[in-house]
Amino acid sequence: MTDFGRTVLPYGSFVRPGETRARVGVGVGAAVLDLTAAAGDIVPEHAALFAGGTLDALLGAGPDVWHDVRAALLAWAEEADASTLEPAADVDLVLPFTVADYVDFYASEHHATNVGRIFRPDGDALTPNWKHLPIGYHGRAGTVVPSGTPVRRPQGQARRPDGTIGFGPSERLDIEAEIGFIVGTPSRLGDPVPVEDFDRHVFGICVVNDWSARDIQAWEYVPLGPFLGKSFATSVSPWVVPLAALDGARVDPPARDPEPLPYLRDAEPWALDLELIVSINGTAVSRAPFAGMYWTGAQMLAHLTVNGASLRTGDLFASGTVSGPEPDQRGSLLEMSWNGTQPLELADGTSRAFLLDGDHVTIAATARLADGSRLALGEVHGEVTA
Amino acid sequence: MTDFGRTVLPYGSFVRPGETRARVGVGVGAAVLDLTAAAGDIVPEHAALFAGGTLDALLGAGPDVWHDVRAALLAWAEEADASTLEPAADVDLVLPFTVADYVDFYASEHHATNVGRIFRPDGDALTPNWKHLPIGYHGRAGTVVPSGTPVRRPQGQARRPDGTIGFGPSERLDIEAEIGFIVGTPSRLGDPVPVEDFDRHVFGICVVNDWSARDIQAWEYVPLGPFLGKSFATSVSPWVVPLAALDGARVDPPARDPEPLPYLRDAEPWALDLELIVSINGTAVSRAPFAGMYWTGAQMLAHLTVNGASLRTGDLFASGTVSGPEPDQRGSLLEMSWNGTQPLELADGTSRAFLLDGDHVTIAATARLADGSRLALGEVHGEVTA
Repeated sequence: MTDFGRTVLPYGSFVRPGETRARVGVGVGAAVLDLTAAAGDIVPEHAALFAGGTLDALLGAGPDVWHDVRAALLAWAEEADASTLEPAADVDLVLPFTVADYVDFYASEHHATNVGRIFRPDGDALTPNWKHLPIGYHGRAGTVVPSGTPVRRPQGQARRPDGTIGFGPSERLDIEAEIGFIVGTPSRLGDPVPVEDFDRHVFGICVVNDWSARDIQAWEYVPLGPFLGKSFATSVSPWVVPLAALDGARVDPPARDPEPLPYLRDAEPWALDLELIVSINGTAVSRAPFAGMYWTGAQMLAHLTVNGASLRTGDLFASGTVSGPEPDQRGSLLEMSWNGTQPLELADGTSRAFLLDGDHVTIAATARLADGSRLALGEVHGEVTA
Repeated sequence: MTDFGRTVLPYGSFVRPGETRARVGVGVGAAVLDLTAAAGDIVPEHAALFAGGTLDALLGAGPDVWHDVRAALLAWAEEADASTLEPAADVDLVLPFTVADYVDFYASEHHATNVGRIFRPDGDALTPNWKHLPIGYHGRAGTVVPSGTPVRRPQGQARRPDGTIGFGPSERLDIEAEIGFIVGTPSRLGDPVPVEDFDRHVFGICVVNDWSARDIQAWEYVPLGPFLGKSFATSVSPWVVPLAALDGARVDPPARDPEPLPYLRDAEPWALDLELIVSINGTAVSRAPFAGMYWTGAQMLAHLTVNGASLRTGDLFASGTVSGPEPDQRGSLLEMSWNGTQPLELADGTSRAFLLDGDHVTIAATARLADGSRLALGEVHGEVTA
């Protein structure tokens, strides 16, 4: 279980053993504050937001309320006796909010370059549009599942090496380590959300594992993009870290060339100095740096809405696979094993090109602050089943 | 206003002038039965399903209840005095159900071939996967809007003829005439829905206009598919026609070559002899036949779930543009004007390559029964605004 300390104060939704009612929780150290029960004491003016047991009402309440609730929790946490709280390991953490639309971006230059080199070895690694806009697509909101949900290996069509079309369980099941952004404040149809309004609309982040069946995806994705290669499951961490907790991890984004169009120009630095640690069966196989992502969350949001598409409370948009420049900083097995040609060694002596049934995958995130200290931001976990 | 006769009995959701409460309506002739008020008399055992004012509860109630309610309404409609009902024109028809996930397919061979010829004149018109699986992708559920909602011309990036990247209002705003399928019965994560269970999960159909900005789409869609070129608006007809009302319009699907994989083989004939009439500012510009679609709704559903993706009540999946073999049977302006090179003449003497501000687009659907008679299935309407 993650120890969140007393300043991250992530929000989640949990159910106690033997109960069915969900409650809003706050992560304090490695324990859970039952905010549905305690809000009357800690934030009485907003207690009704937590009665439903999910974050939906809080998300929709907007940035002024987010600020007030967090300020009250910070003051409370400073004095709190954590021994009176229940250990997070004793409760069942559930999906913390109702996912409205799910969008997945493709915002790591290193990831996109690696994928381009693997699949289009004779062409340009990046498509011509890549540095002009954050490429994204819609995924399946109904199959976003909370950490711990077993992931059944999907079946589907794939093209065999001999060119015939096979059908069966995916033989190239992969992960994608990502950061997800959760929209709180909705917007009106027809009204783009400018980059500078990012933190008035986005409440916080979670860790995402965008499970991917590479063989299914490779056969289906031309011309309309990924579909069944992704839609069987997308796992999210149960704790949502408010953006406000990441103030100390904000850094300047990388230089962009060419300069983006005005609607995509940074108003404030929204790169985040986060690290995603990917582990398979307990072996850490990658440490992917988020700070170098070519496009920030603020740019993704501005792009997503520039055509007038409206936002709803609960919209989730993810960064796409986070990969850094080094081989041990890649966020997918496709890249780590270079399309299966360079299998990884695990601590138990086995090797992996792609995932086997029974594999446990954990992606844990931390934030690095200006003083070099780290905040734990939670993790997303899943086991592959047959 | 559509005259539905007394056997289609589509369901919708409406609000009376001066009221805010939505009610479930049934289309009877050109009038509306207030089922929220009348259910206690007509289907007392299921009256609670209509209290919420939307179709959500009915959709989730499953096929046995759908059958019972429709049987009661058919019996009632036979005797009803329609003069006691309110004219549909007097009420405001709203979005009839909560859209869960929205998926768009690409199931017309004529459409896909036309698009391939226009955009890839030197390559094969169809991609290698096209006849092996119904290609589909996820769209934006949050911007599915009811008929009558004005559609603001989206802005976005596009590549100019000289290769530079421009930004501004779309100059190639288009329509796509489609049929949408609405899921009632959910399914469990990991469990594919076989073709033979189609009508146990799908409640009914609606007419869809999948507005498309071709210039935005052309620049963004490689490699991850359409995004902002589609996500600004998708309009649906306000009346949902139950599948059961289309029994008489079921016909054999076209021959498929190669034979589809077992999970995509027809269990029963689910091609539907429908026609979509597209009108711009009152000029009928196309009559697109649905019966010849290469893939049926049952196949789309089986494919959508074959990887274990679960269904939710309110999932909407659309057929993709319906185009027939003839030039006057095409369901998009891209095809009708052959990418703008052959503008259409309208009755007012003007011509159109793509849509202009102020244009009114209506797509109306009918079903042809074995005796040659036609059932009206409703229409979707929208005006383009600047």
